[in-house]
Amino acid sequence: MPIRVTVWNEAQHEKTNAAVQKIYPQGIHAVIAEGLKEKLGGEVVVRTATLDEPEHGLTEAVLAETDVLTWWGHMAHGKVEDKIVERVHKRVLEGMGLIVLHSGHYAKVFKKLMGTGCGLKWREAAEMERLWVVNPGHPIVEGLGEYFEIEQVEMYGEFFDVPQPDELVLISWFEGGEVFRSGCCWNRGKGKVFYFRPGHETFPIYYHAQVRQVIANAVKYVSPRKGSPYAIGSPNIKTPLNPIRAKHTVDETIHGR
Amino acid sequence: MPIRVTVWNEAQHEKTNAAVQKIYPQGIHAVIAEGLKEKLGGEVVVRTATLDEPEHGLTEAVLAETDVLTWWGHMAHGKVEDKIVERVHKRVLEGMGLIVLHSGHYAKVFKKLMGTGCGLKWREAAEMERLWVVNPGHPIVEGLGEYFEIEQVEMYGEFFDVPQPDELVLISWFEGGEVFRSGCCWNRGKGKVFYFRPGHETFPIYYHAQVRQVIANAVKYVSPRKGSPYAIGSPNIKTPLNPIRAKHTVDETIHGR
Amino acid sequence: MPIRVTVWNEAQHEKTNAAVQKIYPQGIHAVIAEGLKEKLGGEVVVRTATLDEPEHGLTEAVLAETDVLTWWGHMAHGKVEDKIVERVHKRVLEGMGLIVLHSGHYAKVFKKLMGTGCGLKWREAAEMERLWVVNPGHPIVEGLGEYFEIEQVEMYGEFFDVPQPDELVLISWFEGGEVFRSGCCWNRGKGKVFYFRPGHETFPIYYHAQVRQVIANAVKYVSPRKGSPYAIGSPNIKTPLNPIRAKHTVDETIHGR
Amino acid sequence: MPIRVTVWNEAQHEKTNAAVQKIYPQGIHAVIAEGLKEKLGGEVVVRTATLDEPEHGLTEAVLAETDVLTWWGHMAHGKVEDKIVERVHKRVLEGMGLIVLHSGHYAKVFKKLMGTGCGLKWREAAEMERLWVVNPGHPIVEGLGEYFEIEQVEMYGEFFDVPQPDELVLISWFEGGEVFRSGCCWNRGKGKVFYFRPGHETFPIYYHAQVRQVIANAVKYVSPRKGSPYAIGSPNIKTPLNPIRAKHTVDETIHGR
Repeated sequence: MPIRVTVWNEAQHEKTNAAVQKIYPQGIHAVIAEGLKEKLGGEVVVRTATLDEPEHGLTEAVLAETDVLTWWGHMAHGKVEDKIVERVHKRVLEGMGLIVLHSGHYAKVFKKLMGTGCGLKWREAAEMERLWVVNPGHPIVEGLGEYFEIEQVEMYGEFFDVPQPDELVLISWFEGGEVFRSGCCWNRGKGKVFYFRPGHETFPIYYHAQVRQVIANAVKYVSPRKGSPYAIGSPNIKTPLNPIRAKHTVDETIHGR
Repeated sequence: MPIRVTVWNEAQHEKTNAAVQKIYPQGIHAVIAEGLKEKLGGEVVVRTATLDEPEHGLTEAVLAETDVLTWWGHMAHGKVEDKIVERVHKRVLEGMGLIVLHSGHYAKVFKKLMGTGCGLKWREAAEMERLWVVNPGHPIVEGLGEYFEIEQVEMYGEFFDVPQPDELVLISWFEGGEVFRSGCCWNRGKGKVFYFRPGHETFPIYYHAQVRQVIANAVKYVSPRKGSPYAIGSPNIKTPLNPIRAKHTVDETIHGR
Repeated sequence: MPIRVTVWNEAQHEKTNAAVQKIYPQGIHAVIAEGLKEKLGGEVVVRTATLDEPEHGLTEAVLAETDVLTWWGHMAHGKVEDKIVERVHKRVLEGMGLIVLHSGHYAKVFKKLMGTGCGLKWREAAEMERLWVVNPGHPIVEGLGEYFEIEQVEMYGEFFDVPQPDELVLISWFEGGEVFRSGCCWNRGKGKVFYFRPGHETFPIYYHAQVRQVIANAVKYVSPRKGSPYAIGSPNIKTPLNPIRAKHTVDETIHGR
Repeated sequence: MPIRVTVWNEAQHEKTNAAVQKIYPQGIHAVIAEGLKEKLGGEVVVRTATLDEPEHGLTEAVLAETDVLTWWGHMAHGKVEDKIVERVHKRVLEGMGLIVLHSGHYAKVFKKLMGTGCGLKWREAAEMERLWVVNPGHPIVEGLGEYFEIEQVEMYGEFFDVPQPDELVLISWFEGGEVFRSGCCWNRGKGKVFYFRPGHETFPIYYHAQVRQVIANAVKYVSPRKGSPYAIGSPNIKTPLNPIRAKHTVDETIHGR
């Protein structure tokens, strides 16, 4: 059974910014989707969805058929409806994998899953980034060397205001002097969340071979795992599994204190 | 300098439920505050705040003077205004300690900090709970033995739908057959959050010596630590710390691919 | 490609203890191996190895062909040669999965991987154990319910003197009043270690359906993942990746201070 | 009560290497001790110990009076007697803090506590290191800014072969292009271990104000905490805390299967 991936993109820069249009004429989502097909072939079926579609393209039906959702947003985080954010959040807790890319660090659903501010430093100076593997046994770095480089990127620097990741996989070195935790995994409910830093709209990041490799590996890593059932919510378990002895009344207990 | 503690209680059961009034005639908050003064004396100054006060007693001024906030709520989570939740959340990220008690697992601010559903199983059967120390070097268990018991409690059972705690300190054994991760620490921003399970309104839990000891220890543990500064938000660092070499244009880069 | 499993057993009780012989006439290892074949069929090829064999059956050749090693030992931990312990340890760091069962908590290789004392409480009283899932999204609990029970076991109680697990999957409730972190994962180098509590030699634990399920799931979970290369040891990287500016001499630096 | 610190140094380079003698005429330990007194004053009492002393200066009596041990070693790790390593390891599990500096990453006791190979990359090229705070709420970074710099250092690069730290506090950026997890905390038994990267013998690292600040902060952070008692070893708890029902015999259980 192939993994069913939905590649989501706010797709706003592409409407107005000629530089972005030149790099991503069909939208960032098209190139991310192409990268997944290149790296994973028949292991995935990929669809895309964007902000301007009804329900942002993330209907109940679409999410029900989505194993892994990738998220790219930047200038329009505030336009994502809370109802859709709740829906995506719920699906992650149920087990859907979520891959948050680059400026998605400020997406509502990422902030909701992290519980923190999710801020970071940034600079647009076309500098070089080198991503170092700090967890060489991790499936997300399969096929990489000890590091890989991207010639020109927007810089993101620490402090990255997220909970310490359950698994830290990649740390970036930037030419201009900063570092960043660029590949981070967290577990939330039954779902896995992976944040991956590279991806600015004015650099052709999603054509980069290793960037594509990491996203493809991550799709496999965060895809739903079967696990065991658990009761959503707060069920009242009236019948105990083991016998409970009779006790003094609370009155007697207080009186006796 | 004493630690400035604000003990928050929704204080709703106390208004209508005779059984609760009998145990907590001045409100649950009064007994929690009393316990802190008993255990910590001059190490703390304690004030209380409740849902029915203006701004739930949690004005900007009060929070600015609060090092540690303890939270008890149950039937009125939905009545806590979102504006106040945001305010408390922000203060935690800035470094204020937060201790969430018992049914506070469903408090808005706890769910916001966790990013998960925070559900659990429960049963009211006056059963015995034994809390085992699973992190004996932790300051929160100072002065305890290897375990302690509470004769009659409401049961909470796994699965507790929270992110795996950064530090798991206590695990409960229940007479009726369940287990629960009853003492859990998480870091969020510069703040520390401690969840502590005991505390039902119809049992006199907050008079219990070891329960008081744990809460007192936790107040000290989650109280603000100085740390280092960090930029809230997403600052643009225009000037690099190290020189950045001139690069090919993006056009050249794409063309050359 | 099937996962190549080596089931290791010290196989000492079986030589002299009639009660153990009755339960495990071909040795504990035979029943563990049988359980893996029952649950995983062609997904695994299983061999066994025991203490009394040359090099304890764990020659370089055997380990080179082992993806996952399961370990059962109890009375003869001290007879395992340090040379073999080093060999197994090295293979785990290189990526071989290791599943440590029950009294293997005191195995030399487990202590070496943990860095702690690995002690725990115990009692032989034929009591009931109920194992609760506390990580329902984890592959190791696939196919289980919210809990499972074993009618008669040796009890292990906290404090279990290990580093806090990277992933805590199961917590046991014991009839006699204790709790225990019974399913724990740690990462070491490129390898994964899973400790699973059930398994005393005088109870027929390894015939139990859910126990077999957990071990089978764990075999799949800890089997080697490809990851990325890394230099074993401490390589001198003489040529920097980026240019290093000339500095003052140390003399000048000190003088200038 | 002041924290009792023992500053340990193998003190071998100082015997033969003129460059090292020039920087550390009384030995590296003397300058580390001086730094602690400068930053902590009456909060600490500091003694030193070196490899060439009887029992390496780490007698039972000395360790019994040591709250925090700092460790510097490089060329003579192999000369540290296993008996002393066991003694230090045992004290850490009992609660003594341990701060491992720079080339101490290969110290026997550090490897024993980590359970991994502890390798890393290195280069001696007098390059610049910038240490970024990635956990701004942590007490170890109190008094620092968002980062600090050391003009000339030996480089250490990833992959650093240790278990993922319980708390990652500092990440280094190196002029030559590498990154490193330079400030890492782990819990082992009741003790805390802090690894801090800076410190080569041919650079005057331990005179550096922020380096001194970090070590001083770490002394306070890893100093023993009271916690709760726990039974060292593997005690048999013959009497259950709760009643255990009579069961079928194992024979009946097997027969009935």
